[in-house]
Amino acid sequence: MSHNSFGHLFRVTTFGESHGVALGCVVDGCPPGLALEAEEIQAELDRRKPGQSRFTTQRREPDQVKILSGVFADDRTGGRQLTTGTPIALMIENTDQRSKDYSDIRDSYRPGHADYTYDAKYGIRDYRGGGRSSARETAARVAAGAVARKVIPGITIRAALVQMGPHAVDRSRWDWDQVERNPFFCPDAETASFYEEYLDGIRKDGSSVGAVIEVVAEGVPPGLGAPIYGKLDADLAAAMMSINAVKGVEIGDGFAAAALRGEENADEMRAGNGGRPRFLANHAGGILGGISSGEPVVVRFAVKPTSSILTPRQSVDRQGAEVDLITKGRHDPCVGIRAVPVAEAMMACVLADHVLRHRGQVGGG
Amino acid sequence: MSHNSFGHLFRVTTFGESHGVALGCVVDGCPPGLALEAEEIQAELDRRKPGQSRFTTQRREPDQVKILSGVFADDRTGGRQLTTGTPIALMIENTDQRSKDYSDIRDSYRPGHADYTYDAKYGIRDYRGGGRSSARETAARVAAGAVARKVIPGITIRAALVQMGPHAVDRSRWDWDQVERNPFFCPDAETASFYEEYLDGIRKDGSSVGAVIEVVAEGVPPGLGAPIYGKLDADLAAAMMSINAVKGVEIGDGFAAAALRGEENADEMRAGNGGRPRFLANHAGGILGGISSGEPVVVRFAVKPTSSILTPRQSVDRQGAEVDLITKGRHDPCVGIRAVPVAEAMMACVLADHVLRHRGQVGGG
Amino acid sequence: MSHNSFGHLFRVTTFGESHGVALGCVVDGCPPGLALEAEEIQAELDRRKPGQSRFTTQRREPDQVKILSGVFADDRTGGRQLTTGTPIALMIENTDQRSKDYSDIRDSYRPGHADYTYDAKYGIRDYRGGGRSSARETAARVAAGAVARKVIPGITIRAALVQMGPHAVDRSRWDWDQVERNPFFCPDAETASFYEEYLDGIRKDGSSVGAVIEVVAEGVPPGLGAPIYGKLDADLAAAMMSINAVKGVEIGDGFAAAALRGEENADEMRAGNGGRPRFLANHAGGILGGISSGEPVVVRFAVKPTSSILTPRQSVDRQGAEVDLITKGRHDPCVGIRAVPVAEAMMACVLADHVLRHRGQVGGG
Amino acid sequence: MSHNSFGHLFRVTTFGESHGVALGCVVDGCPPGLALEAEEIQAELDRRKPGQSRFTTQRREPDQVKILSGVFADDRTGGRQLTTGTPIALMIENTDQRSKDYSDIRDSYRPGHADYTYDAKYGIRDYRGGGRSSARETAARVAAGAVARKVIPGITIRAALVQMGPHAVDRSRWDWDQVERNPFFCPDAETASFYEEYLDGIRKDGSSVGAVIEVVAEGVPPGLGAPIYGKLDADLAAAMMSINAVKGVEIGDGFAAAALRGEENADEMRAGNGGRPRFLANHAGGILGGISSGEPVVVRFAVKPTSSILTPRQSVDRQGAEVDLITKGRHDPCVGIRAVPVAEAMMACVLADHVLRHRGQVGGG
Repeated sequence: MSHNSFGHLFRVTTFGESHGVALGCVVDGCPPGLALEAEEIQAELDRRKPGQSRFTTQRREPDQVKILSGVFADDRTGGRQLTTGTPIALMIENTDQRSKDYSDIRDSYRPGHADYTYDAKYGIRDYRGGGRSSARETAARVAAGAVARKVIPGITIRAALVQMGPHAVDRSRWDWDQVERNPFFCPDAETASFYEEYLDGIRKDGSSVGAVIEVVAEGVPPGLGAPIYGKLDADLAAAMMSINAVKGVEIGDGFAAAALRGEENADEMRAGNGGRPRFLANHAGGILGGISSGEPVVVRFAVKPTSSILTPRQSVDRQGAEVDLITKGRHDPCVGIRAVPVAEAMMACVLADHVLRHRGQVGGG
Repeated sequence: MSHNSFGHLFRVTTFGESHGVALGCVVDGCPPGLALEAEEIQAELDRRKPGQSRFTTQRREPDQVKILSGVFADDRTGGRQLTTGTPIALMIENTDQRSKDYSDIRDSYRPGHADYTYDAKYGIRDYRGGGRSSARETAARVAAGAVARKVIPGITIRAALVQMGPHAVDRSRWDWDQVERNPFFCPDAETASFYEEYLDGIRKDGSSVGAVIEVVAEGVPPGLGAPIYGKLDADLAAAMMSINAVKGVEIGDGFAAAALRGEENADEMRAGNGGRPRFLANHAGGILGGISSGEPVVVRFAVKPTSSILTPRQSVDRQGAEVDLITKGRHDPCVGIRAVPVAEAMMACVLADHVLRHRGQVGGG
Repeated sequence: MSHNSFGHLFRVTTFGESHGVALGCVVDGCPPGLALEAEEIQAELDRRKPGQSRFTTQRREPDQVKILSGVFADDRTGGRQLTTGTPIALMIENTDQRSKDYSDIRDSYRPGHADYTYDAKYGIRDYRGGGRSSARETAARVAAGAVARKVIPGITIRAALVQMGPHAVDRSRWDWDQVERNPFFCPDAETASFYEEYLDGIRKDGSSVGAVIEVVAEGVPPGLGAPIYGKLDADLAAAMMSINAVKGVEIGDGFAAAALRGEENADEMRAGNGGRPRFLANHAGGILGGISSGEPVVVRFAVKPTSSILTPRQSVDRQGAEVDLITKGRHDPCVGIRAVPVAEAMMACVLADHVLRHRGQVGGG
Repeated sequence: MSHNSFGHLFRVTTFGESHGVALGCVVDGCPPGLALEAEEIQAELDRRKPGQSRFTTQRREPDQVKILSGVFADDRTGGRQLTTGTPIALMIENTDQRSKDYSDIRDSYRPGHADYTYDAKYGIRDYRGGGRSSARETAARVAAGAVARKVIPGITIRAALVQMGPHAVDRSRWDWDQVERNPFFCPDAETASFYEEYLDGIRKDGSSVGAVIEVVAEGVPPGLGAPIYGKLDADLAAAMMSINAVKGVEIGDGFAAAALRGEENADEMRAGNGGRPRFLANHAGGILGGISSGEPVVVRFAVKPTSSILTPRQSVDRQGAEVDLITKGRHDPCVGIRAVPVAEAMMACVLADHVLRHRGQVGGG
C-alpha cells in the first residue's frame, strides 16, 4: 500500500504537517557504502526553502535537516560518513508556525484547495497551514531526492520553469546556467526578467498563477522501467502528479504527439557508439514501451495557481452555510516556482528506484 | 512490487503476449457476493476487440474470455454465479496468430516502438506481434475493468475520443449516445463523419495518427484517494500512462490550468444537498488534494500515432547495422480508438481500488 | 497487498479452487534468459500429485501444467525455450471433480477445517472439495517453485518428512536418497517401513495424523535477507505457515534453542576458505540477524492431522443447528506427506526472491 | 517491498540504530479520529525499557517518545488530541550510548550474532551496540503497537513468559495478574520465584539463556485473515519471527499437533450465541484456514539465548583471522523477558492491519 510511500526498492515514506512538530521521511532500501552528509541534503533543501525572494511565501523556515539513522562514520573507512543499507530517517523541525493566521479557515473551505476533501474523507483536518496538504511536505521529497542522487551518480537531473501563466519561455534562448540565476528557475534570462514584473503584478493583485515545469534526466542507461505496470513513464507520471497542485504530466512530446502522424513521431535510429543506436529525434522523451531508450528522459507537468488568494471567493463552511472567503496568511503567488527542485527530487527518486529494480531482475551495474 | 500488477486492494495482475498461448489476468481482492457472468465481461471485450471496422487492425480475434476461478454458482443462492472473495482468473486464448508477418522485424527495431528497449533491457524479445508490448495486453485490462464495475455500481464511467490527429471534437455537440454509434467512440456525430474520411486517407497512406481520449466518472463519492502518494489523480495518471502509446495525462483543466489565475481556477462552492457543497465549476476535474470532491472525475490522455507504419523509416538491427524498415502486418491506423474502452476499464479499476482502500482506512459503505 | 501473492521481486500470485475450471499461478519478476520447459515443471508436479500410493487421496488428477506466457523459443538462440522477463502464467486444469461427494458438507462445518471461517469471512463458500482452502492450491506453488529453482541454480533444496504422528525418524540413519524411495518422503528406510504399517492402521480407522517436515537449502550464499521486516527467516516462516494445515515453524534448533545457554547456542567460527568463516555448528539454521550466514538453511514445520475424517464429530450447520458430521470423500490420511514437495517449492521461491532483492539493493551476482 | 516495513493497511516502518541519534517509526494508515496521547505510548514503552531490574541490560534509556505528526488537538472537538488519518511519526532519542564498550567487537564477529552476516551483506556495519540488529529496535515496535491497540479497542492482548531455559511455567497456576508483578512477565508466581534464583546464577556465570513467550488475543472477531498468502497465522509467524533472536513460532497446539490424530485435533462445535458456534476446544489457536474463528488467538515463540556473553568463544575477525571473543558491555541475560511487550505489540499491529484489510475487502465495522 502506498498512502505515504513511493518507490519500491528505493522506497520513501514521508510524514509531517505544515504546523506540526516536524516533517521528514524514511528512505528504505538505499544501497550501502555511499558517502552521505547532512550538508549535501541541506544544499538541495536550500534551493526549495521558502522566503528566499519576494516571489515565494514569506514564511521563514530554516528547513534544517537532521539525519537520524542509516549512516555511520566508520573510523575504519577514514571516518567518512557512509550509508549502511539500513533505513535513513531524515527530520526537519518546524519553527515558524504562525498558526493563528489560519484561524479564519478553520471552519471554511478554500475553493480549489484540499480543505473540503480532507474533511470529507477523514472527518477531521489539521487546518493549520493546510496540514498534510501543505506544500511543506515537499521538503521531505527534496531531502529524499538528495539521497537518491547518490544512487545514480552518472545521471544528471535538471529542471526548469518553462511557462508562467500563459507565458512560455523562448526555447531558442534556453541556458541551463540561467536557472540558478533568477528567482524563477527560468532557463531564459529574458523571459525571467519579464516574469519579475509579471509576477509582481499578480502578487500585488492578491492573486496567483499557474506554471509548467520541465525536468530532464541525461545519462539514463537504456533498459530502466518494468512493463506493464511498472513502466518508467507511468511511475514518473504518478510521481509528478503527486506533487501538490499538479494537474497534468507529459513525457517527451506529450499531448503534441496526438497531432502527429506516425512518420513524424517515429524517432529514427542510426548506428551509434558502443553498440547503442543513435536516435535522430526524441519525440518519445527517452522512453519507449515504458523502458528507457538511453535518450534524455523529458517530463513536463502543469501546476495550477495557488488556491490561497486574497480575492474573495464563494464557499461554504463545515456546517454547509455559504461564506465569502479571503485567504490571508503567507502564500506563494506561483507555487510552481518551488516545484522545480521538487521535480528534480522526484525524478531522482524514480530513477534510483528503477536502477535498483532493473539490477534486481536483470542484474548488472 | 508492480512489474505486472496494478491496484492494491483491488489488485490486477496481467499476463500474456500477442502471439503466445493466451493472455489474461488475475483479479485479487474483489469483494465476495457480486453477481458476475462471463457474458458481462465479454460485452466489454467486444467493444475493444479488433477487426470490427476498417479503422482497426484486421487481425481476427474472438477474444473469448473464460473465468477460471473465483466465482461460484451456489444452488443455495438461486444458482446465480457470485464472486467468492478469492482470486478471479480470466483467460483469453489467442487464435489468429499470423506470426510469419513479423519475421522482418525479428532482427530490426521499429522506430518509436518498444523493440529496441525490450532487447536492451532483457536481451531477449518475443518479437511476434510485439510480444508483451502489444496493445493486445489491454484486453486483459478491459476484462478486469468489467469486474471492477461490479464493485462500484453507483458510479457511471464513460469515455470518448475527443481528438484525432490535430482535429478536436466540437464540445458543443457532445452527445454520449453518439459514442457507440460510430467506429471512433466519438461523441460528436459531425466530427465522426469527418474522421471517417480523414482516417481513410491516413490508412491508405500507410501512415497512422495520434488521438486524445477523455474519460469521465460520475457518481464518485467524495473522499476517495489517499494522500500523499496514493492520491487518486496520481493513481489515475499512472494507470493511463501505463496504456500503450500514451504520452500525456491530465486531470480536469490539466495543462490549461497553468495559464489561469487563482480566482479563475478556484472551483467556488455554494450550499448543496445532503450536507455536500455544490461546486460552481469543475476546473479541478473532481479531485482536490488528491481526494475526490464528489464532482465528476475527468481525465484526458494523449495517444501517440502507431509506430508500425508502411512508410520506410531509418533504423538499426540487432547487430547495430543501419536498415530501412517498413512494418507490414495488421495495424491500427489510430490506436487511440481502441484505447477508449481501455480508458474506462482503467478508471473502473482505480476507483474500485480506492473505494476499498477508503473503506479499509476510514470505514463506511 | 498480499491476499494471494507472495514474494516481492520474484512474485507469485496463485488462483483456483479445488473443483473450479483450473488453478495456476502468475510468476512475475523472473529474470530473462533462463531455459524453461513445461516438462521440468511437470516433473516437480508429479512428485506432489495425488493418487500415487494408497497413502494419499485417491482423487485422480493428471495435474498437467501449461505455460501460457512469459517464455519464447527463439530460433536465434537455437530454438531453446527461454524466459523473457515477462510474467509466466502457469495453468493446471481440473479434471476429476466428483463434486457430489461434498454435498453433505455444503451446509455443515467440518471441525478443524476452514469451512466455518470462510463462511464467517465472505458469507459465501465454494464448498466443493474445500474450494480455495483445498490442498490442491499447493500444486500452483510447486509449479512456481520449479521456476524459482531456475533462478538459483547453485542452491540445492531438499525436504523430508521427519515425524509422523508421534514417531520421529532416526537421524543417525538419515539418507537423502531414501526420500524418493518410499511413499512418505522419509529419509530413514527403517522408519519408512514402520510408517507403512502405522499409516495403514490410521487409514483403516478412518482417522488421520499429523507430521513434521524438514527442508534444507545448501549452497545459500551469505547475505540474503533484509532486516528488519524482510528477514529471511521471517519470510520463510510466513511461507511455510501459509501451507494448509501448518501450525508451527522453526529455524535451526528452533524451540529447542529456548532451553540452551548462550555458550551452547553460539555457533563458533574458525578461519575458512575464500575469506568466509567456517562455522563449527549450525544451531542457527543458517540465518543470523535475519540474514543467511552461508551455512545450510534449515526449516522445520508441523502439519496438523487432516480435518476430514470418517469418525463422527460434533459440529453445527450454517443455521447454527447442531449436527454430527462424518466427512466422506477422498482424503489424505497424512496430508503432511504431500507437503514435502510443497516445502521445497516455498523454500525455492523465498530464496529466489531474496537473491533478486539482495542483487537489487546491494548488487552483485 | 518490506525491508523495514510491516503490515499493509496499518503499515509500520521503523528506523534507527542502537547508538544512532534516534530510533522510531512511521505508522501509516491509522484510521482518523482516535484519541492518542504520547503518555499512552509511553506507558507501553516503559514496560519494555531496559534497566528496570537486575535481570535486564543495565543501559539507562528513558525511551521517551515524541509524536512528530499525524495527530491534532482540535479545539472544535474539545481539544482532545486525535489521529487525523495522516502518517504518525514517533521518535525516541538515544541518550545513553556508551559506544566505547563495543570497541572490541568492532573488528570481530560475536558467534551467534548478526555481526558477520551484516558485514557479509552490506560490507559495512554500525558495530556500536549492534547497530540496527540491536534489540533496541523493538522499542519502535512497542510504540507502534500502542497506536495499533487504539484501532482494535474490543480486543484484549496479553503476553507472558512461559518458559525460561528448560523450565516451563505450571499452567495450572496461570494468573494473568501475576505477569506485571515479577520482573519476568511470568504468569505463575511460584515459577517466577524460581526464575529469580535461576537467572541470577546464569547472570553471575556471564552466560545467558533462552525463553518461550506466549501471546493471547481475546475478543478477535471471526473472519480476519486473507487466504492464501495473507493468512492471519502466516502474518503472525512473520511478525514474531522478525523479533530479534526468535527461532520458532507456533499457533495453538503448534508442533504438538503433529503428534495428534484427526479426531483429537478437531475443535468440535456446538450451537453458540448470536449465531456463532461455540468451540469445545481450541487446538487451532483461533485460526482455521488462515482466518480467525472467534476463539482466542494463541501464539508462542522461542527466543534463543543472548549471543553476547562473557564466556570466551571461538570466532574470526574481519580479516578472517581466528580470535577468542568475550562480549563485555551491558546485556540481557535472558533477552526473552523484554520480548513480552514486543510480542503484544506485534500481535496488536497484525490484528489492526487485518481488521482494516477485512473492512476493505468485505466491509463492515
